[in-house]
Amino acid sequence: MIARLAVIGVGLIGGSLARALRAADQVQDIIGCGRSLDNLLLARELGVIDAYTHDPATAVRDADLVFIASPLGAMREIFSQIKDVLRPETVITDGGSVKGSVVADAQAVFGHVPPNFVPGHPIAGTERSGVAASFPELFRNRRVILTPLAETDAQALARVTALWQAAGAEVSVMSVAHHDEVLAATSHLPHMLAFGLVDLLAQMQNNAEVFRYAAGGFRDFTRIASSNPVMWRDICLANRHALSDMLACFSHEMTELAATIRNGDGEHLLDIFTRAKAARDRFIDGAH
Amino acid sequence: MIARLAVIGVGLIGGSLARALRAADQVQDIIGCGRSLDNLLLARELGVIDAYTHDPATAVRDADLVFIASPLGAMREIFSQIKDVLRPETVITDGGSVKGSVVADAQAVFGHVPPNFVPGHPIAGTERSGVAASFPELFRNRRVILTPLAETDAQALARVTALWQAAGAEVSVMSVAHHDEVLAATSHLPHMLAFGLVDLLAQMQNNAEVFRYAAGGFRDFTRIASSNPVMWRDICLANRHALSDMLACFSHEMTELAATIRNGDGEHLLDIFTRAKAARDRFIDGAH
Repeated sequence: MIARLAVIGVGLIGGSLARALRAADQVQDIIGCGRSLDNLLLARELGVIDAYTHDPATAVRDADLVFIASPLGAMREIFSQIKDVLRPETVITDGGSVKGSVVADAQAVFGHVPPNFVPGHPIAGTERSGVAASFPELFRNRRVILTPLAETDAQALARVTALWQAAGAEVSVMSVAHHDEVLAATSHLPHMLAFGLVDLLAQMQNNAEVFRYAAGGFRDFTRIASSNPVMWRDICLANRHALSDMLACFSHEMTELAATIRNGDGEHLLDIFTRAKAARDRFIDGAH
Repeated sequence: MIARLAVIGVGLIGGSLARALRAADQVQDIIGCGRSLDNLLLARELGVIDAYTHDPATAVRDADLVFIASPLGAMREIFSQIKDVLRPETVITDGGSVKGSVVADAQAVFGHVPPNFVPGHPIAGTERSGVAASFPELFRNRRVILTPLAETDAQALARVTALWQAAGAEVSVMSVAHHDEVLAATSHLPHMLAFGLVDLLAQMQNNAEVFRYAAGGFRDFTRIASSNPVMWRDICLANRHALSDMLACFSHEMTELAATIRNGDGEHLLDIFTRAKAARDRFIDGAH
């Protein structure tokens, strides 16, 4: 049981974890912290939080557990604001989509990564944001990756693991660098393709007509291009090295595919498409 | 009312049109034609067709209306097989995803494009294939593009238009070349990106782990990579010029985006993502 949970950033992720822990009867008091008063008022009205503040230091002062679910670009500033008031026994975790940058931010502010800080990332979300989009089942049967360091306290790791399990998630542990490579491949690169495709089409002449004839596949394919632009700017900047590597690999793949199409090499095309279909059917739909 | 409809290729598209027309009481007799006996037997068992044959000439001999829903690579051979038995009053249409190649095939076989042939393309489908995947509502509220030529008979066009409207679709008319450009942008390019992404990830070390951490967005994004490889080989070959142009444009877009990320230009990233989100929200979700 968490006596007092501080959620910094009461949006889709922060709001959903608060709702899930409350639904699982794992928490007594929840204090929310954020910049938008409207969002905080709505969060309190919805019962997602019990109290609110705009000041991270106030939020964490008496908290047993702090969950930071702010955009990556705000992490360093938040660490600075809470540094001097954090009790040594308070456990901190976060939901940032890139772990290397968050660990670097903690290092820069605290001079070391605090043993009670457990970097984490729930692999869940929708293209919507704000507390209005949050719901308690968001993490159910979804994966959460924790990336503890050598200095991370084992009890803090166990506590954060239990927290996510109470929200219905399956917890995995991996290194910071490996997390950032895997996510560059499975999340950050696809988002770049969706943003790039929609941006390209929007620039075409008669773009309204082009979108009019887009079928269901296009709708699914580009849904992630409706994600929060600020969040994605931050992710790109935070994971620029691993993402740049993946973009280069993808460019290489597409250059080959384009040459195969231009040359009319049907046999090679069939090989590529058959291999891709088999991989997707095996890995994705086979997982259910 | 169609006294006798011949459906060549009783798969997702052909089967769904047969079911839709039957449900709308628009057809008396439906004869199905295809190569797989199992699929034809299943189609008859499901009531999608009344009779079947492996021979396109037999299928079209007494038909009022012929719908060719075969892969693009089979079109020319089918035109050759039906050429000598087609009655001049029989109306023919097709469901091919590329129109230039189908018109060229008709031209090559008949020496001209028959006035009763109305090239068409329903913008609908799922990643599944075969008559088992067909359902009568597939075309409801979906767009169907017809690409009549100057020599196309107005009555044939009217008849095919009414046919698709009876299946619940909204019919648009545009030129062959314009259709192929629009579809290269909204359908063929996205499929190439999905096939390329899944193929790239499948080649990565620890690919099982990479797919394990893929979230819902990735699932949606890559669903179209589970589409029929033969169909997509044929589409790429048939629309290679327009698709090559789109691939080059996309490559240019991604080269710029990759440079922006590598340079850490957050302001420019925010511009691109904001523009893309606005376009998608406006064009796609705004359409409902």
